[in-house]
Amino acid sequence: MTYCVGLMLERGLVFMSDTRTNAGVDNISTFRKMHCWEVPGDRVMVLMSAGNLATTQAVVSILDERTKATQERDPSLLAQPSMFQAASLVADALHEVIERHADAGQRADAAFNATLILGGQIAGGPPRMFLIYPEGNFIEAGEDTPFFQIGETKYGRPILVRAFDKGLSFEAAVKLLLVSFDSTVKANLSVAAPFDLQIVETDALVLGRSRRIAPDDPYYTAVSENWGRALKNALDLLPDYEF
Amino acid sequence: MTYCVGLMLERGLVFMSDTRTNAGVDNISTFRKMHCWEVPGDRVMVLMSAGNLATTQAVVSILDERTKATQERDPSLLAQPSMFQAASLVADALHEVIERHADAGQRADAAFNATLILGGQIAGGPPRMFLIYPEGNFIEAGEDTPFFQIGETKYGRPILVRAFDKGLSFEAAVKLLLVSFDSTVKANLSVAAPFDLQIVETDALVLGRSRRIAPDDPYYTAVSENWGRALKNALDLLPDYEF
Repeated sequence: MTYCVGLMLERGLVFMSDTRTNAGVDNISTFRKMHCWEVPGDRVMVLMSAGNLATTQAVVSILDERTKATQERDPSLLAQPSMFQAASLVADALHEVIERHADAGQRADAAFNATLILGGQIAGGPPRMFLIYPEGNFIEAGEDTPFFQIGETKYGRPILVRAFDKGLSFEAAVKLLLVSFDSTVKANLSVAAPFDLQIVETDALVLGRSRRIAPDDPYYTAVSENWGRALKNALDLLPDYEF
Repeated sequence: MTYCVGLMLERGLVFMSDTRTNAGVDNISTFRKMHCWEVPGDRVMVLMSAGNLATTQAVVSILDERTKATQERDPSLLAQPSMFQAASLVADALHEVIERHADAGQRADAAFNATLILGGQIAGGPPRMFLIYPEGNFIEAGEDTPFFQIGETKYGRPILVRAFDKGLSFEAAVKLLLVSFDSTVKANLSVAAPFDLQIVETDALVLGRSRRIAPDDPYYTAVSENWGRALKNALDLLPDYEF
């Protein structure tokens, strides 16, 4: 499967995605699920994808081609006047790709589906983040729902629900994300490191810091080990049930 | 949905189930999903169910009726020579109920499915616990997989994976279960208190302590609140990521 999370903080957006893809359990590969575009000073966009790899790669290729030869191939992601228009464009591309294969006489009804998270900022507007459904519609993150997850979302959700705070520093946000990812990896074979990390600082209008966090990354392994211990300690500190 | 967990400890079995059932999101009810049978000194059995309520109630009714008029209505759960035979009987009843409705021209293919956890002990044998699938086959808990979850299993799994230990006291096991249930309740509307708790002590051959833990149970609310704080503290104690 996949696990991707986008956080909307006061100071900007933080994106993290895993890289495992699998067809069944015996055909495992590593693919990047995070794609970035920028026009320094004008716009920055990050797209993460979960679902059928052929679909998500086709969507990214379509969007990418259009940005590279904008004269011939409109509409381009880099020419949209707002993040809302950009999300519409991505949603249309996604719907188009899914429809194309659905029409090809295929019977695997859900197999070509994909879900996307698109976030970024265009000069003149605030940072915005969208969750785009395979049907081609989408929702936007706001005050009340300041983060989106796609893919194998359940294992890593409790810690996000409990500990997310829009005032987090980027450093603390990465820590929170790694704990959420680690909970997922520990419970589900279809999600695995390396993880891709991308920061988009508010009003910077260039791509911020990014990292590929390897399975043996010292910080990640330390978080993983210490979090297990910390959980046990936290549990020990709670009083036992009394009958 | 539902959330039920059965733990296999050295000192016995611990069962916990929620009580929420829902058809869609606007038809919410409370139903007991845990059913117990005992013949003091001879056997004790606990059955928990997740899935279609009509199916699981029918299975329990069939099993229950047979135990009450054993002469007429064999085979009875109370006459089986081993827990394995008891699990076979339950599995057959489940498969029979699902088949009956599947044959009735219904098209909702998965809608009648249910999954069960059966645990208990029969004199002369050890405590055993089984996970029974809608197809009528089942697997048994052992050293390597000492707990089973059914229903909405993902949210509450990370803490079980991290903190389960077969040497736990019953009191600590209930605490662990409540944390796992609370993580699920916080993230998913289809799981909710009250929770039913049943202990089966090894070689006691009578039903052990049992409780219904209400949504406003002081211990549960304390665990819920303190666990949120403990998680945040544990996270704070980890060093932040450094770019």
